[in-house]
Amino acid sequence: MRPLNDTLLRALLRQPTDYTPVWLMRQAGRYLPEYRATRARAGSFMALAKSPALATEVTLQPLERYALDAAILFSDILTVPDAMGLGLRFAEGEGPKFERPIRSEEDVARLAVPDIGALDYVMDAVGEIRRALAGRVPLIGFSGSPFTLACYMVEGGGSDDFRLVKTMLYRRPDLLHRILAVNAAAVAEYLNAQIEAGAQAVMVFDTWGGALADRAYQAFSLAYLRDVVSKVKREHEGERIPTIVFTKGGGLWLEQIADTGCDAVGLDWTVNLGAARARVGARCALQGNVDPMVLFGGDAAIRREVEQTLASFGPPSAGAGHVFNLGHGISQHTPPEAVSVLVDAVHEVSRQMRR
Amino acid sequence: MRPLNDTLLRALLRQPTDYTPVWLMRQAGRYLPEYRATRARAGSFMALAKSPALATEVTLQPLERYALDAAILFSDILTVPDAMGLGLRFAEGEGPKFERPIRSEEDVARLAVPDIGALDYVMDAVGEIRRALAGRVPLIGFSGSPFTLACYMVEGGGSDDFRLVKTMLYRRPDLLHRILAVNAAAVAEYLNAQIEAGAQAVMVFDTWGGALADRAYQAFSLAYLRDVVSKVKREHEGERIPTIVFTKGGGLWLEQIADTGCDAVGLDWTVNLGAARARVGARCALQGNVDPMVLFGGDAAIRREVEQTLASFGPPSAGAGHVFNLGHGISQHTPPEAVSVLVDAVHEVSRQMRR
Repeated sequence: MRPLNDTLLRALLRQPTDYTPVWLMRQAGRYLPEYRATRARAGSFMALAKSPALATEVTLQPLERYALDAAILFSDILTVPDAMGLGLRFAEGEGPKFERPIRSEEDVARLAVPDIGALDYVMDAVGEIRRALAGRVPLIGFSGSPFTLACYMVEGGGSDDFRLVKTMLYRRPDLLHRILAVNAAAVAEYLNAQIEAGAQAVMVFDTWGGALADRAYQAFSLAYLRDVVSKVKREHEGERIPTIVFTKGGGLWLEQIADTGCDAVGLDWTVNLGAARARVGARCALQGNVDPMVLFGGDAAIRREVEQTLASFGPPSAGAGHVFNLGHGISQHTPPEAVSVLVDAVHEVSRQMRR
Repeated sequence: MRPLNDTLLRALLRQPTDYTPVWLMRQAGRYLPEYRATRARAGSFMALAKSPALATEVTLQPLERYALDAAILFSDILTVPDAMGLGLRFAEGEGPKFERPIRSEEDVARLAVPDIGALDYVMDAVGEIRRALAGRVPLIGFSGSPFTLACYMVEGGGSDDFRLVKTMLYRRPDLLHRILAVNAAAVAEYLNAQIEAGAQAVMVFDTWGGALADRAYQAFSLAYLRDVVSKVKREHEGERIPTIVFTKGGGLWLEQIADTGCDAVGLDWTVNLGAARARVGARCALQGNVDPMVLFGGDAAIRREVEQTLASFGPPSAGAGHVFNLGHGISQHTPPEAVSVLVDAVHEVSRQMRR
C-alpha cells in the first residue's frame, strides 16, 4: 500500500513530485534528547536495536519533530554478521566490536549465510514501525554492503587503515571473495525479508568501499553490490521497491554504481550534485549530499546550503529524481533545532523552484 | 645544479625518462628500524625534526636501502603554525597537538605570517641534506596546504569530523578566510626559503582538503593552493623547480588542481590512473598511486600491483609524465623488505615498457 506521502518513493523512481523529499541518514539518533532517554531505558545499544517496541519508538521520534518524508528502520549495519555468530558488542564510546573476528582460513571456511530467523527481531520491528506509521511516510529498510560488513568482520571493529582486511585482499583474495559471497547472499536475503515485513524502499550502505583502491573497489565491493541489487525484490504486493546504493567516498565511481541496477545512488558531500546529475541522472535518482557539519553553521548558512544544493541539482525534469539528504550520518553533536531549519528550507525552496 | 639521477625532475616536467622514477611518501619513517633508532636518540619527534644533523641522517636512511629516485626532506607539515606560536607538541601515540589553537575572533586577529627565521632549522637541514646527497638524487621540499594547516590550527590536533574548523567555515567564513590568507603567504614564503636553501622540487600536502564539500573545497582549499603555487619560485639558479600538489581524496577535482599552475598532481589510490591521465595528463605530470596496504600483500601481489599501475598509466609519450608513489604515506607497520620489491619492480617493469 502506498503511503499518504509518497514523495520519497516517487523521487526515487524519477517520477514528478511537488517538492524535493528529505530524510537524514541516522535521523533517529543521539543528537535527539528523546533518543538518548529511550537508549538509557534500554540499557545498551543492542538491547535497543533488538527490542521491536523500542526500535519503533526511536524510529518515529524524528518524525514527531520534523516534516521528514521518510522513516528509516532503527537498527545497526552489523546485525547480519552478529547473526553469523561473530558476537557483536558495543563498548561505551568505542564503536562496534566483534568478539570472534574472521582471521584464519578456518574462520572463513566455517562462515555461512545465517538462518534469517535469527534476525526476526528486525522483521518484527519493521512490521511494528509500519503499523505505527499508519501510512504517513514510507519506511526505508537497510543493510551494510558485503564489503563494509567484511571490514568489520575481519578487522574486528573500526579501523583507520583497514590493514587486516586489505592484507587479506592482496595476499589471499580467494578468502575475501568467499566472505563477500556469503555476505552478499545474506544481505540480499536480509533485505528481502525486510521488504516482506514491510520495508517500502531499501538502502545498501557501503560505508567503507571508498577506502579501496580503484581496481580493488571494482572487484571487492562493486561486484558484490551488483550481486545484492540483482537479488533484491523489485516489487512487493504490487508496489515497486526502490533500491538505493551509497558508497561513501565513491564519487569517482558513480557511473559504475548506477550500472548495478539500483534505482538511486547516494552521494557524499564531496560530489558536485549537478555534475553527478549530468553523469548518471538519466539512469538513476540521486540522494544527498549536504555536509552534516553544515548543521553547525547557523540558520542562514543552512538555508544557503539548501538553496545551493537544490540549485546545483537544477530544475526538476522528466526522468530525473533527487532525494535531499546529508552526505553522511548526522553528527551526535547537532543542535536539534538546526534540523528543522534544514527540512523546512528543503520543502520551501524546492516548492518555489517548481513554480 | 642538476643531480646525477634527474629522472624525477624530468618526469615531473613531462620530459622523456629511461624508466619511471619512484619515491614514497613518508619514506623516512617508523617502518625503518634505523629511523626508530635515530628517533630514540633524539628523544622526541620535534627534537629529531629540529636537529639538521639528525634530520639529514633520517632523510638519507631509505636511500641507503632502496634505489629511490628522490629524497624528501624529513620534517613535519606543522612547522609553520608552530613558528606562528601555536605550540606544537607530539604526545606519545597521540599525533600532533597545538597548545594554543585558534578558536576566537581575537586569536584569528592576532595571527600573522611568522618570521621565517624561526624555521632556520628547516633550511639548515635542507642545506645539509643537499651536501650529504652530493647530487645522487634530487631533494624534495614540502609544506602542508593552507587548509590542512588550518584544520590542525583550529581543531588543535587531528579530528574525525573537523567539526570546529567546519563550524567556522559555515558560520564565520570571514575568519577562516583570514587564517587561510595568512597560511598561504606563510607557506609560499616557507617553500621559497626551502628552494633557496636547496630544495629541487616542492610538494604541497593537502591532506584534509578531501574532507570538504565540493563548493567548500573550491573556496577554502583550492583557491589558496592556487595562491601558493602562483607565489612559489619556478626557477632557482637556472634550474626549473617543479611543484607538486596533492589533495588526498581529491580525485573528483583533478582538473581544478591541474589548473592551479602546478607541474604535477598527486593522486591517492581511489583514482584510476589511466582515467586521470586522460583528464589532466597533457597539462601536468601525475604522481601516485598504489595503496600503501599493497606492501602487506607479499612479493607477488606487490609486483602485480606495480605492473597494473604502470599499465594503467600506459606507455610513455611526449608531454606525459608519471612519478610512481604510494597514494598516501607508508604505514609504520610495513615490512622493510616489501619496499625493495616495489622499488625494484617499478624500475624493471617501466624499463621493459620502454623497450
